[in-house]
Amino acid sequence: MKNTFGTSVSVTIFGESHGNSIGAVLDGIAPGIPVDEEYIAHQMSLRKAVGKISTPRREADAVKIVSGVFNGKTTGTPITFIIENQDQKSKDYGELAYKARPGHADFPAQMKYHGNQDFRGGGHFSGRITAGLVAAGAVMLTALKAKGITVGTHILSCGGVYDRGFENIPEDIEKLKDAEFAVLDDSVKEPMIEKIEAARDEGDSVGGRLETAVYGVPSGVGEPWFDTAEGVLSHILFSIPAVKGVEFGDGFDLADMKGSQANDSYRCENGKVVTATNHNGGITGGITNGMPIIFRTAIKPTPSIYKEQQTINLNTFENTDLQIKGRHDPAIIHRARVVIDSVAALAVGDMLAQRFGTDWLADIND
Amino acid sequence: MKNTFGTSVSVTIFGESHGNSIGAVLDGIAPGIPVDEEYIAHQMSLRKAVGKISTPRREADAVKIVSGVFNGKTTGTPITFIIENQDQKSKDYGELAYKARPGHADFPAQMKYHGNQDFRGGGHFSGRITAGLVAAGAVMLTALKAKGITVGTHILSCGGVYDRGFENIPEDIEKLKDAEFAVLDDSVKEPMIEKIEAARDEGDSVGGRLETAVYGVPSGVGEPWFDTAEGVLSHILFSIPAVKGVEFGDGFDLADMKGSQANDSYRCENGKVVTATNHNGGITGGITNGMPIIFRTAIKPTPSIYKEQQTINLNTFENTDLQIKGRHDPAIIHRARVVIDSVAALAVGDMLAQRFGTDWLADIND
Amino acid sequence: MKNTFGTSVSVTIFGESHGNSIGAVLDGIAPGIPVDEEYIAHQMSLRKAVGKISTPRREADAVKIVSGVFNGKTTGTPITFIIENQDQKSKDYGELAYKARPGHADFPAQMKYHGNQDFRGGGHFSGRITAGLVAAGAVMLTALKAKGITVGTHILSCGGVYDRGFENIPEDIEKLKDAEFAVLDDSVKEPMIEKIEAARDEGDSVGGRLETAVYGVPSGVGEPWFDTAEGVLSHILFSIPAVKGVEFGDGFDLADMKGSQANDSYRCENGKVVTATNHNGGITGGITNGMPIIFRTAIKPTPSIYKEQQTINLNTFENTDLQIKGRHDPAIIHRARVVIDSVAALAVGDMLAQRFGTDWLADIND
Amino acid sequence: MKNTFGTSVSVTIFGESHGNSIGAVLDGIAPGIPVDEEYIAHQMSLRKAVGKISTPRREADAVKIVSGVFNGKTTGTPITFIIENQDQKSKDYGELAYKARPGHADFPAQMKYHGNQDFRGGGHFSGRITAGLVAAGAVMLTALKAKGITVGTHILSCGGVYDRGFENIPEDIEKLKDAEFAVLDDSVKEPMIEKIEAARDEGDSVGGRLETAVYGVPSGVGEPWFDTAEGVLSHILFSIPAVKGVEFGDGFDLADMKGSQANDSYRCENGKVVTATNHNGGITGGITNGMPIIFRTAIKPTPSIYKEQQTINLNTFENTDLQIKGRHDPAIIHRARVVIDSVAALAVGDMLAQRFGTDWLADIND
Repeated sequence: MKNTFGTSVSVTIFGESHGNSIGAVLDGIAPGIPVDEEYIAHQMSLRKAVGKISTPRREADAVKIVSGVFNGKTTGTPITFIIENQDQKSKDYGELAYKARPGHADFPAQMKYHGNQDFRGGGHFSGRITAGLVAAGAVMLTALKAKGITVGTHILSCGGVYDRGFENIPEDIEKLKDAEFAVLDDSVKEPMIEKIEAARDEGDSVGGRLETAVYGVPSGVGEPWFDTAEGVLSHILFSIPAVKGVEFGDGFDLADMKGSQANDSYRCENGKVVTATNHNGGITGGITNGMPIIFRTAIKPTPSIYKEQQTINLNTFENTDLQIKGRHDPAIIHRARVVIDSVAALAVGDMLAQRFGTDWLADIND
Repeated sequence: MKNTFGTSVSVTIFGESHGNSIGAVLDGIAPGIPVDEEYIAHQMSLRKAVGKISTPRREADAVKIVSGVFNGKTTGTPITFIIENQDQKSKDYGELAYKARPGHADFPAQMKYHGNQDFRGGGHFSGRITAGLVAAGAVMLTALKAKGITVGTHILSCGGVYDRGFENIPEDIEKLKDAEFAVLDDSVKEPMIEKIEAARDEGDSVGGRLETAVYGVPSGVGEPWFDTAEGVLSHILFSIPAVKGVEFGDGFDLADMKGSQANDSYRCENGKVVTATNHNGGITGGITNGMPIIFRTAIKPTPSIYKEQQTINLNTFENTDLQIKGRHDPAIIHRARVVIDSVAALAVGDMLAQRFGTDWLADIND
Repeated sequence: MKNTFGTSVSVTIFGESHGNSIGAVLDGIAPGIPVDEEYIAHQMSLRKAVGKISTPRREADAVKIVSGVFNGKTTGTPITFIIENQDQKSKDYGELAYKARPGHADFPAQMKYHGNQDFRGGGHFSGRITAGLVAAGAVMLTALKAKGITVGTHILSCGGVYDRGFENIPEDIEKLKDAEFAVLDDSVKEPMIEKIEAARDEGDSVGGRLETAVYGVPSGVGEPWFDTAEGVLSHILFSIPAVKGVEFGDGFDLADMKGSQANDSYRCENGKVVTATNHNGGITGGITNGMPIIFRTAIKPTPSIYKEQQTINLNTFENTDLQIKGRHDPAIIHRARVVIDSVAALAVGDMLAQRFGTDWLADIND
Repeated sequence: MKNTFGTSVSVTIFGESHGNSIGAVLDGIAPGIPVDEEYIAHQMSLRKAVGKISTPRREADAVKIVSGVFNGKTTGTPITFIIENQDQKSKDYGELAYKARPGHADFPAQMKYHGNQDFRGGGHFSGRITAGLVAAGAVMLTALKAKGITVGTHILSCGGVYDRGFENIPEDIEKLKDAEFAVLDDSVKEPMIEKIEAARDEGDSVGGRLETAVYGVPSGVGEPWFDTAEGVLSHILFSIPAVKGVEFGDGFDLADMKGSQANDSYRCENGKVVTATNHNGGITGGITNGMPIIFRTAIKPTPSIYKEQQTINLNTFENTDLQIKGRHDPAIIHRARVVIDSVAALAVGDMLAQRFGTDWLADIND
């Protein structure tokens, strides 16, 4: 299904950047999970545009829950999140009705939707649609946390500046929880922001790498084929606009290792099976092995730049030039990280519910 | 569904390395597509173990089609491929019944299947199961070819030796078609094989990178969210044992570019819309733009190595040492490439059938 | 997926009877289909409670479209319909928080949701949730009509009074289009309404049979197994609260026929293949044969009655008596028929989109 | 997916009546369930043609399990059942290559598959394909039995002769287990068989009604919308060739009842919640209430009759006459009942696995 993802627990998203509302429906979630609207608002705030390194567009992003929550808890039936669009300035986008922005979906959308798509602000392709994923993900993150599973993402690189990798994962995840600009080594924050500001000043944009840890997932989750933990996670990760690469554990670096380097030895420590290293990122044979799931995503630079670009007119298919105006992010990597946390939680939560049943997430024992 | 992938056109796989048979069911494929058993045998031969750089296990890999083909053509109902296992030497595997091989699925399988899994030769986790995907993929590759769509994969790197990238894609794909060791620059073949042989001689193994081009896919295929062309392809690519990373276009390198570098300008050439560059690998906004789809996969080194390793006893959870015997590949990258071609064809064919209807692949006009 | 139905075209529903809003997301619908809000309002009015034979609850049922429609046409991305609940009188339902209404979902819901369900007015089980299906169905009915496919349902029986069957199907469907109480033979309307009023006066309720025709579906739609036209239709039909039986063509009466009576002979008339009779209701082998699809649904009497009933206390599991108060329908059959039309359209539209591709419904030819 | 059914536990079927083999793949079944090949053979024998009231075609129907079973137990990975076709006499079917048999799928198949379908013996539409469902169902029936869930179907009516309904359900199911001609009241067996023989002697056929009980399903299984217990069961039941109606509980008779008659009062007996009556067939609001699930299916008379019939030539679309030869069943109702048991078990088992997790069926507690 096109805008629905998941098997036992699914999420459906809808909306356009400059339409009336955007939102999401979270279905199949266990009953009895506390829904904390403040936590949802907190997660939404992490996704929001902030400061000089983001778009000047400002949305309140108030999430209205219109179904599925009763007396502050999930009912077990679909939770619907509605986020009204308020700060649309559609008149800015006039020329973009017929000029395809390079790096954007405008041209393929024209070929798929035959000119009926809502082109304003990227329409249904807008990164703004991820707000629904963040709202739905917040409920799942709450459920996972009660089961000892936490998720955190940091900006591993931005504009060529690198953060350190994960070390003590539970502590690192805790540190990232409230960070507006999520890095593990505080000293790289300013250099990264400088790169973003420099790009903005040139009318250009930058991308980067995000690294994510999912801590506490039990072993035995995922399938040997097709619905491998990697396959399911990558499927939803590539939905996030700008993600062009996903790798697990040491990922592409594994291609250069010997087997004797890449294999993670099993050890039994205090009655628990662990691996001495985690080159495989917590997943072997498509199934979790109880070690932290580690993956990295490549975020391409924001395609909306102010520099003049060559393109075509979508009506006449003639060559033309394009000077994008409007409000745009010189980087979205600091905003994307909470989206990654959210979709990772949704994917992992779904795999757990398939494995252990719907109620598992709520730990109901009656 | 666990061992079934696809929406309009789906493939179901089954079997264990040392069981009676392995195979696949290809469902939803258009009626009237010629099924050329010689071509299937050819594709199977590309996946086969050959020479000194592969496992000494030799399987005839004869594919028996037991349903869905009538008068040499697809009927439109499920095609079932059965490949009997012949050269099993299960006695080799005794110790592996209770010692978890590092880098393998043995431990997670134990946690998921509670000791009921067929451990012999990796059981259902064995790379041998990909033979069914190659058989099913051969039918889809035939159908795609008749629509002008071709697929080719080369070994971009192996043991640190690099091949050149794609240049003239249709010609490069043609060149790769029958290659036993698929490289574009013939001069890198021997150096790569030397790396594999050196690893084998050390009782070790190597991995590498594969690069794939899908040529001729029309624009407008894929979805903006979830079932993005990248998401669907990555989902099935990560099923292939040893794949630990997937990237599209310039992938992780995009993370270091500026927007002005990464954006692919549209141009109209001879009435056809093309992009001046293809940093996005033929997909923007999750939807194909008509340019070749380009992706790379990271293949980790084969985990079955002869060097002694530390691990646990799966019954007692005590630490132990493991010396793998049996027959193993020092590298599988040269065998994996036809599997990648096959699953890429299955995923792209499914997306096309969803977009244009079941019959489109057969181009029936009555 | 629990609250999502469909493969190429899917619908997701959400909401509770006394929550903030109910609604639906229609996804996968072709771009460029005109969305006529007046027609949607008309369809909603057919579902509304009217006159003395329905619940005194009155809802404006104003449908707000918050995504997926641009310039009066479908964009091809998800259409979201929001219907705010306004006339909730939750205080009426106090006792029902802990007493299971016989014939209702209260007890199974308690066992499934462990007391977290929104019990007010039936919560997510309420027939009110069908309003979202009617809104989504209206868009599909518009698309189908443009392809020559029409759908109509009449009250075949109510309280033991029978309507005539379909005769001239296109004319009969046209006649039913705007009927508040949908019968083909006008003379049975008053007798049926008298039965409903008599039941209401006794504090009781009645059920009935609905008969539906789907006219103009081309042959060759549906699958031989599992996704048979009958299987897909029955799956969504049984979602409608109170439906307890579904039969196609002569249905259960076929069980008493000889093969020579039940077989529909093929004839070629004016270059078109038809059948002399339609005992099979337009479907053989799970696939449409081009004749009208005919099915009947059994609607059980509304379970909310005013007569005293025996039941249990959901908290203590002790036996108790129940006297339902509040506002209830003595019959819902006259309201259900537009829901049947809507879900039949959604199911048939999905099968057509799978067969002929997403764009088929919009007949885009560029 | 076309030939795959189920979410957590799925079955994929394949094959043609006169092809090489037919079979099924059962996926997602819990590990550790004993697989008793004798029981599978027993179930196959119940489906087999026997005596004068069935087709003279005789198949050994030996089921070969080629994957997914190890040491006599399920592994948790796909179980593949292969049944070779042996007694094909394809030369009998010559004329049927181009003459559409009334009541059969020949004409819709021609429109769907454009002449590529395997027409021999009904091809993929043949009732013979249900053999795979019986094999897969046998494994699920074994798993369910260990959890206290049993399934039984009897011939409620055949040729106008009626059996008694279910009374003491566990005992009745036990009685039906091995019956070659499954009736509850032995005195109706001969009258029913006489009706079948009389039809056969006239070159005609008969149908009937089957009634099924699923005993021991816990409450709280199924979903409020779409994946209602009724919707999921009916979906797979309508796959069985010749099923044209499905009703739950009192089904169509509920349409003539008052609410006060149809509602099932809840009672607490010995600490267990039961209903005083079971008019709703164990399901309210789409969810099981712990009472036996009861449903009836309408089986149309076998369409292959020896009487001359009118039809069309599929190549020329001209009117013609048809005299079916070959080997055919004058009734299939006595063979269909084990197929109903099998698909009911598969559907119920899948719903249980979704609700309680994959392992629940195997009751693994480690």
